[in-house]
Amino acid sequence: MVTTDALVAGVHFLWPGDPRLIAVKALRKNLSDLAAMGAEPLAYSLALQLPATCDTGWLRCFAAGLAETQAASGIHLSGGDSAGTPGPVTICITAFGLVPQGLALRRNGARPSDGVWVSGTLGDAVTGLRLARDGGGDGLAAEDRQALIDRHWVPPLHLELGQGLRGIASAAMDVSDGLVGDLQHIARTSGCDIRLEAGALPLSGAFRRAQQQGLCRVEDALTGGDDYELVFTVPVENRPRLLEIAKNLGVTVTEVGAVLASTSRPDVQVWSATGERIVLNSPGWRHF
Amino acid sequence: MVTTDALVAGVHFLWPGDPRLIAVKALRKNLSDLAAMGAEPLAYSLALQLPATCDTGWLRCFAAGLAETQAASGIHLSGGDSAGTPGPVTICITAFGLVPQGLALRRNGARPSDGVWVSGTLGDAVTGLRLARDGGGDGLAAEDRQALIDRHWVPPLHLELGQGLRGIASAAMDVSDGLVGDLQHIARTSGCDIRLEAGALPLSGAFRRAQQQGLCRVEDALTGGDDYELVFTVPVENRPRLLEIAKNLGVTVTEVGAVLASTSRPDVQVWSATGERIVLNSPGWRHF
Repeated sequence: MVTTDALVAGVHFLWPGDPRLIAVKALRKNLSDLAAMGAEPLAYSLALQLPATCDTGWLRCFAAGLAETQAASGIHLSGGDSAGTPGPVTICITAFGLVPQGLALRRNGARPSDGVWVSGTLGDAVTGLRLARDGGGDGLAAEDRQALIDRHWVPPLHLELGQGLRGIASAAMDVSDGLVGDLQHIARTSGCDIRLEAGALPLSGAFRRAQQQGLCRVEDALTGGDDYELVFTVPVENRPRLLEIAKNLGVTVTEVGAVLASTSRPDVQVWSATGERIVLNSPGWRHF
Repeated sequence: MVTTDALVAGVHFLWPGDPRLIAVKALRKNLSDLAAMGAEPLAYSLALQLPATCDTGWLRCFAAGLAETQAASGIHLSGGDSAGTPGPVTICITAFGLVPQGLALRRNGARPSDGVWVSGTLGDAVTGLRLARDGGGDGLAAEDRQALIDRHWVPPLHLELGQGLRGIASAAMDVSDGLVGDLQHIARTSGCDIRLEAGALPLSGAFRRAQQQGLCRVEDALTGGDDYELVFTVPVENRPRLLEIAKNLGVTVTEVGAVLASTSRPDVQVWSATGERIVLNSPGWRHF
């Protein structure tokens, strides 16, 4: 499997930022794509465009971020390219992964009556981005604030979960642009509707406390993006195996909806805990 | 084989420029890397960062440039990513090629008494860049001027030559940063000196006529960069097979020097036609 993703400073991550964390985010974002395909990381190539302000010290920290992410994931740097740019720092990574033939997780296999599941918690990254960029939230405990900002910089690594889902999930993606927008891809390529229960979304303690202070809303978990959790559909008969895998890995997985037969144009319907249909302004995150 | 190269507008190509030619240059630059490894093109992934000024019309022309280069080379687009950027157009391509195991052309195989060869002509691209960027050269015929500028935008495709050199060349590279600088990589990784005869460099008619008008110098052919010709070393016994291959392909190849046993630190020595050692200010091209 091959995946390519580019990150632009000020578009995909806050700028200025810690070069170590910029590297961590760039590489983990690509690892998240491999995880969503059920692949085992093999190697990656890196193309880096740097403005003149990025000096040797900057590069040393950036390299440290790559090194720690390589160690955590088992991926290796296979080559690359670097150049100067009059524009922002731009990082393009192409990552290679291995998956046994025929077992790659795809987007088009969801079937009516499958459950819709997500790993971890949603909405933290976009809330953290807002706190880091705009300030505010003085009433929030320092550790909650930091936990949310960390989620902007450090996407979770779900490689083992992704590999565990081979043969169990009928479709999978990672949540990069926002849960609803990403699930639309699964709905459309699978030719099914997806019913999402907003009341079932997994929210972290920090998110809930920020929510109480008006710093975020449930819409952030539906459309916020940058979560890099896995979202996947699982046939009912595979439910026990999913729960066993998640337990063994110590990963939280939450059922947030169901796949339905499509009546017309396949889409994602979002329902509130009180049984009302939620209409969103936008299904996914727009680059800031 | 995998190769990654990124191009930044205003750094690696003139900006503004024809989007069709920008695509042609970006993809051919990567194909040149595959050619230099003796590989057959398979697929490529593309990550594109575009400022808001690049509209649908721009993208349509860019896609046309990709399509014509795909048709000319047999490579296919396998995936990619696009995003907005507040900076310049940035194009990152990762290209994949196939080569029979053990037959890839490498940089470290040059041996004393091998001949040093280049394809095509050198110095045109940097001269064309200068004419397009700075103007001048009014005394030059319009077709010479255009031929030189075209070489900035359209790198040659030497895929068949590269594949033909498998088992014949002892080392190979493409001339992307400048002949002398690129040959230094071969010299150092092979542990040999390389003697280069400046008087033997293949120069196009347009280049010679521009040279007569003081618009370029032989140094441009030594260090100009962006030529995307192949430079390679060939053992004496393989010389007849090389010449036969080049003849069959209709490609000009020129012997420009020889590999020597290294006396101390392996390097490239440049000698003039009159037998004097030429000392260059810089072995290679710096991004403009």
